[in-house]
Amino acid sequence: MPYKILNTKNIEEYLFSLSAIREFFNSQSLEVKEIGDGNLNFVFLASSKADSTKSLIVKQAVPYLRCVGEEYPLSRERMTYEIRSLETFATLSEHIPTIYHSDEAMSVIVMEYLGEHIIMRKGMIESTRYPLFASHISTYLANTLFKTSSLYLSNVDKAALVSAFVDNSELCKLTQDFVFSAPFMTHETNAELPELQDVADKIANDTELKVKILELKYKFMNQSEALLHGDLHTGSIMVNQSDTYVFDSEFAFVGPMGFDTGALIANLVMSWVSHHVQDSNVEYLMWIEETIVSVWQLFTEKFITLWNETPQSALILKGYASAEVLQAYQKEFMHNLLQESIGFAGCKIMRRQLGIAGVEDIRGISNVVTREKANRLALNIGEQFIKEYKNIEKIEDIIKIMKV
Amino acid sequence: MPYKILNTKNIEEYLFSLSAIREFFNSQSLEVKEIGDGNLNFVFLASSKADSTKSLIVKQAVPYLRCVGEEYPLSRERMTYEIRSLETFATLSEHIPTIYHSDEAMSVIVMEYLGEHIIMRKGMIESTRYPLFASHISTYLANTLFKTSSLYLSNVDKAALVSAFVDNSELCKLTQDFVFSAPFMTHETNAELPELQDVADKIANDTELKVKILELKYKFMNQSEALLHGDLHTGSIMVNQSDTYVFDSEFAFVGPMGFDTGALIANLVMSWVSHHVQDSNVEYLMWIEETIVSVWQLFTEKFITLWNETPQSALILKGYASAEVLQAYQKEFMHNLLQESIGFAGCKIMRRQLGIAGVEDIRGISNVVTREKANRLALNIGEQFIKEYKNIEKIEDIIKIMKV
Repeated sequence: MPYKILNTKNIEEYLFSLSAIREFFNSQSLEVKEIGDGNLNFVFLASSKADSTKSLIVKQAVPYLRCVGEEYPLSRERMTYEIRSLETFATLSEHIPTIYHSDEAMSVIVMEYLGEHIIMRKGMIESTRYPLFASHISTYLANTLFKTSSLYLSNVDKAALVSAFVDNSELCKLTQDFVFSAPFMTHETNAELPELQDVADKIANDTELKVKILELKYKFMNQSEALLHGDLHTGSIMVNQSDTYVFDSEFAFVGPMGFDTGALIANLVMSWVSHHVQDSNVEYLMWIEETIVSVWQLFTEKFITLWNETPQSALILKGYASAEVLQAYQKEFMHNLLQESIGFAGCKIMRRQLGIAGVEDIRGISNVVTREKANRLALNIGEQFIKEYKNIEKIEDIIKIMKV
Repeated sequence: MPYKILNTKNIEEYLFSLSAIREFFNSQSLEVKEIGDGNLNFVFLASSKADSTKSLIVKQAVPYLRCVGEEYPLSRERMTYEIRSLETFATLSEHIPTIYHSDEAMSVIVMEYLGEHIIMRKGMIESTRYPLFASHISTYLANTLFKTSSLYLSNVDKAALVSAFVDNSELCKLTQDFVFSAPFMTHETNAELPELQDVADKIANDTELKVKILELKYKFMNQSEALLHGDLHTGSIMVNQSDTYVFDSEFAFVGPMGFDTGALIANLVMSWVSHHVQDSNVEYLMWIEETIVSVWQLFTEKFITLWNETPQSALILKGYASAEVLQAYQKEFMHNLLQESIGFAGCKIMRRQLGIAGVEDIRGISNVVTREKANRLALNIGEQFIKEYKNIEKIEDIIKIMKV
């Protein structure tokens, strides 16, 4: 249907016009609350008045930045890419909320309500462990990255995937500017943190660092390997003790695999930094370290298993590769992917300290001295990740960098 | 207009229906000859009966492989990409024949007739020197590669370029299969050359070589850097003592820059091999060596000049890079591009010895002993290019490899 902005008044009529939604609720009337606290979109919780266990999330993009208002226009086509990517990922992984309805023209998606789950970032701030997380997210990453790459897809299917996301350039530009550029120079959008001015200046004048960031930004802009979530931080993941769900994929595009794995590693590292400076819960720090190592090791195992189940592909024609050639190439491929992941993780960590968007784990620290300590530790780790990414041999190497 | 196959009978009516063509000929009747000797398309030469200096080339793709016939279907959409790429390159370089008319629906392009020029491969077989070639082709390469890359284009324009070519997957697959795969394994399409069986077997079992070829093929499939010609060999270039023109760009797509520079270097090297085994014209060998070195050096200079004229871009925001950062990154960028060019050149050289499509410079050698010598020398050079590409420091390094 043609685009119309939804609100708590007109949303019931809209939802009841959709047969799949009518069937889900099996009710005459709904209770609707606006629950979004994000910057970009409106998010509603719609629940059956007759049966409060029946609830759905309705997310709609508006043609402006929600947190500012109509005077800050932002194309609502971002929802098109969120819809397309979530629907693609849903065919590849069970770690995506159930999608009940989507409409690109309406910029709307209707999804499962995850009422018994928590945003992972908030859970980690509260020192909650998620014992199944490494297993779940490594399955998600292996399936979504492998099965949208030219290790798996035909040329025609890969080209169709590139086509479907290539015009998400408005959001790709946000990443290019705010992850890879502005934080490393004087820029009006950077956070005002006078206590970090000395280190911000040092970074802005570090030739080696800035050349390596250009290298990584160029890879981000030119390496069309797989369909990425594009913003896979712990605020885009809902968890509890038994489940893991990934959502908020409006930054999706066909890019370098290491950008998704790196984003996840970066956010685990920033939680580690936050706990390291604030409390002496050594066991929680150890759990984060183990999680980082497990995520990578399990991801590698699962990715290679999928690869071994795919004896021929657009890349490797039947009869081209002996077992020895395949194994040697796989080893090199995963090694290279690890190095790029750590490079991207470094950019992600540094930008969260200096740039426009921080992470609650660190910016939310109320004691300013402790917060500055966290900022400086994170910046130092991020810098080492970027400068050393081509020397990383195994995932444990980054734990050593974190602890120096 | 809707698609209709042209022939010497109906082509005059078609051409006179186009006002730009009527104006060009300014004549009542035309003489038309079918002159194509390629495998894929029909090529006609249309000349004014009143003024034989007025001639145009009409090239049309048919929905099958011309050299086999209707029983071998091949999508005529290849002409769509030839039209789009030549028209794009024509806005960026003067080394493209003048285009008088194009029609994607008719799969037809009408171009300047280069009657006073010769296919460069044929000229080089005859030991003709082209003193302006290095200067011309380096200008063509620097302009087309730089100005279709994210060093120059906005995100939106780059995305539009990717979109316009991403569906040329049928021809990209031909390159993937016949440049990077089939020649290095047992494959029914490979040339039947029993005298090379020992070296073909050795290559098919060389793990190091085959892993490096997979690396390069993966770059070809996933590195969306710039709009490439896609098949820039000396048979796609018309030359004489004063001009250089590039055509036949149906393999165009947004891919790794080094694939175009590498294709050109590969074909200069194969001409060198051909002369090296056949005659003792040391001066011509030296001219080829100097041309290879000049092409790279002039290309580098011109590419960097264009870059320095572009103080800000999607990659490098205004204020991000000091002169020192920019210079260090440019140096690294060109170094990396040289290495990838040599890797791609190695694949191109080897496939022309073992694969379905040879080059006349070598397959055309009538003395079978000399031809085998050329094949073996070319295979050895190609192998070293592939195995050593990450160790290449400067273009002169490949001349050393050729002479060992």
